[in-house]
Amino acid sequence: MNIINQANKLSEQLMRGEVFSDQCPSREILKHVTNRWGGLVLVALLLGTHRFSDLRRKLSGVSEKMLAQTLQTLEADGFVMRVSYPVVPPHVEYSLTPLGGELAKQVELLVDWIEINLPRILDAQQASGIAHRDE
Amino acid sequence: MNIINQANKLSEQLMRGEVFSDQCPSREILKHVTNRWGGLVLVALLLGTHRFSDLRRKLSGVSEKMLAQTLQTLEADGFVMRVSYPVVPPHVEYSLTPLGGELAKQVELLVDWIEINLPRILDAQQASGIAHRDE
Repeated sequence: MNIINQANKLSEQLMRGEVFSDQCPSREILKHVTNRWGGLVLVALLLGTHRFSDLRRKLSGVSEKMLAQTLQTLEADGFVMRVSYPVVPPHVEYSLTPLGGELAKQVELLVDWIEINLPRILDAQQASGIAHRDE
Repeated sequence: MNIINQANKLSEQLMRGEVFSDQCPSREILKHVTNRWGGLVLVALLLGTHRFSDLRRKLSGVSEKMLAQTLQTLEADGFVMRVSYPVVPPHVEYSLTPLGGELAKQVELLVDWIEINLPRILDAQQASGIAHRDE
């Protein structure tokens, strides 16, 4: 390892977040991305621009209020772009920013793993013999 | 694309979960993995077996009750193994199952992305000009 590599490593450590610390803003961002609907909205938008009603149909079970709140949080993080067209009735479109697109691809990998491995997970749940409590 | 590939693709589609459906158990599993503490517990256990008190120290801000509940959920999913030694005072150790280890690596990729890109995210938050509401 040469000196330049060491310097890079050090600056990386100084610059990057630390989700295990409750003082680090990365913890809050992880929460936005992995809350009940945040991750699903990001993955849905990977397919392209959506209107609010399209997203609501795609994410079965989401309420209008929860979806609006989730979109606002992701917009405030700079992951989602909201474009409102001045027509009647109002027409609002949501899409990923370049940063949001990178993040959404990471979330998609996680979602893919769960979907693909679902049969193994269901077997493991049965084998554990522990019932899930309602949360 | 030959016939065997097509058949594989079809069986994959039939077997794999669909997180966008609220009827699919994969949705619930995504929730366990991405709830307030689930993802962090999985990533922490990638470093090896932990005692309860070690995990609690590592995940700053977690309450005893929330950590116990999170571990029980991940154990019931077959991601975490709990070994209790019959000594006084009780000694309980948690580690990842092979399935949990695969999942934890996926979560770690997401957490890494957020930690590494934190400076860009903080810039994007400022640029959005939208304040986060308390959740």
